[in-house]
Amino acid sequence: MIAITIGDAAGIGPEIVLKALERFDTSRFVVYGGADVVRKAMGIAGVPSRDVNLLDGNLATVKGVINVFDTGGPDMSSFRYGVESAECGQAAYDCIARAVADAMAGRLSCVCTAPLNKVSLRLAGIPHIGHTEIFASLTGCDDPLTMFQVYDLRVFFLSRHVSLVEACRMVTYGRLMDYIPRCIRELEKLGVKGTFAVAGLNPHCGEHGLFGDEERCIEAAVSQCRSRGLDVVGPVGADSVFHQCLKGRYSAVLSLYHDQGHIATKTYDFDRTISVTLGMKVLRLSVDHGTAFDIAGKGMADETGMVETLSHALAYEDGLSGRL
Amino acid sequence: MIAITIGDAAGIGPEIVLKALERFDTSRFVVYGGADVVRKAMGIAGVPSRDVNLLDGNLATVKGVINVFDTGGPDMSSFRYGVESAECGQAAYDCIARAVADAMAGRLSCVCTAPLNKVSLRLAGIPHIGHTEIFASLTGCDDPLTMFQVYDLRVFFLSRHVSLVEACRMVTYGRLMDYIPRCIRELEKLGVKGTFAVAGLNPHCGEHGLFGDEERCIEAAVSQCRSRGLDVVGPVGADSVFHQCLKGRYSAVLSLYHDQGHIATKTYDFDRTISVTLGMKVLRLSVDHGTAFDIAGKGMADETGMVETLSHALAYEDGLSGRL
Repeated sequence: MIAITIGDAAGIGPEIVLKALERFDTSRFVVYGGADVVRKAMGIAGVPSRDVNLLDGNLATVKGVINVFDTGGPDMSSFRYGVESAECGQAAYDCIARAVADAMAGRLSCVCTAPLNKVSLRLAGIPHIGHTEIFASLTGCDDPLTMFQVYDLRVFFLSRHVSLVEACRMVTYGRLMDYIPRCIRELEKLGVKGTFAVAGLNPHCGEHGLFGDEERCIEAAVSQCRSRGLDVVGPVGADSVFHQCLKGRYSAVLSLYHDQGHIATKTYDFDRTISVTLGMKVLRLSVDHGTAFDIAGKGMADETGMVETLSHALAYEDGLSGRL
Repeated sequence: MIAITIGDAAGIGPEIVLKALERFDTSRFVVYGGADVVRKAMGIAGVPSRDVNLLDGNLATVKGVINVFDTGGPDMSSFRYGVESAECGQAAYDCIARAVADAMAGRLSCVCTAPLNKVSLRLAGIPHIGHTEIFASLTGCDDPLTMFQVYDLRVFFLSRHVSLVEACRMVTYGRLMDYIPRCIRELEKLGVKGTFAVAGLNPHCGEHGLFGDEERCIEAAVSQCRSRGLDVVGPVGADSVFHQCLKGRYSAVLSLYHDQGHIATKTYDFDRTISVTLGMKVLRLSVDHGTAFDIAGKGMADETGMVETLSHALAYEDGLSGRL
């Protein structure tokens, strides 16, 4: 069973969840959120009206209906789309907390999340800025690992929200020796097989030191990891490694800076790029967009990202069992 | 009329030219190279046998045949595919020189090039390492401008074969004030309309200086260019600017380092990425791959890149007339 948290009720989350569920066997998914929010979103999403089946702790889902674990929600008499509020922030947190608890108890294989609103979270006094921090806190994890995925292109990040100059400095043997084995371990838990690739930093991997020599420490780390039995190659030129991964040559790519991986996935297919958080006791998959308050409640939101998220969750579900 | 140079006869160039020409009205193209090489490649390419129409200086092409301006070629009795030789290097240079001369004389709108072999060029004593240098020399241009194109995504490069750290240093107000107007001028000559975008360097354009502040000089340069009447925006986050250009929002993108643009174009569609050399008196379009000596002469070469090159050449032909 896969959890879907509806995210901030005032955003597009509930709408895209209901639109996306039309493409799947609904009995595979438990929607965590306020039941009234889900019912209201059904009208807005313009999907066929379905019964809402309210679940209790045993999560006995039914086909053809929307299976909801009601974690409460904002008072619908005063609720408004596109407006930040403590009430929505708290409700968004509550549905995640319950889904994570059920996943930790082994009742769910993973949790798919719709977007949160940072302001509403803060208004509710939640001491975390986003999903990753909430999940890390609830699962007791110090170092969750973010992976982007579009089709079969999976991308990890050696660094993320630092300047590009700083990211170049962070390409070190020590950091690579931390990341490469962790990434491979998490891919194994997901049931993903194949050769892991590390991207190069400089054009054409620096052409043997002609322009940039960070590739030396990549070569050393890859060599050391291979001698320990890990199936890893690199550095592979960044202008071809993502293309080759899409063609099935690699299981995943370790990108060396934020935009290296973001440009690859989002230029390839912006709307189908999703985010996966690994390294925790609970697997999280997520759309890679925000609450879009400007179009919330209008039935205009595009569910492509959520459809991809649920598809990948189903694909990973079997491979996962008991391995986290 | 569009020129196609066959490149190194021992590589895949002649084969992909003949395969690609099957998709077009052959009377729009003049093939520059050795006529015997072209005839031999016709058998290898596995395309329908067509007459070879040998042109003289007036380039009067005929439909349904392969129109060749015979610039001579290697002695076919000793010729071998996949082998570097001075003879092939010289022949490859000769076909370019003649095509450029005809283009300079106004008899051709542009020159499409098949790949050269650097070793053969050197063996022939040609004092240039590749196409760009040969074209620059023959057209008397000091600073040709490279643009990559895949579908409607056009990408310029603020720097290319330098380390990533050095590329970050090269993001300066002065350099941008040189490149932005030049890129826009060249797009205008090509007949490409729309807003030109400058990519950001740091993740999320540095989030107002939170991680990296190179975006300040980009903002200043864009602002200065706009005040001079240029239609340019930026910095635009690198994780979305290429996607938005593909969607038609921008005419082209100025990428700030080699891999920023290469990852975008080649991950999007590796085989359809072509290279365009601007800023010279002759427009050059080219496949973005090499001679592939390992598969030359076997009929295995994929002509996708050459088909794209010829398609873009035709698309630019009308817009171009007299503007270079």
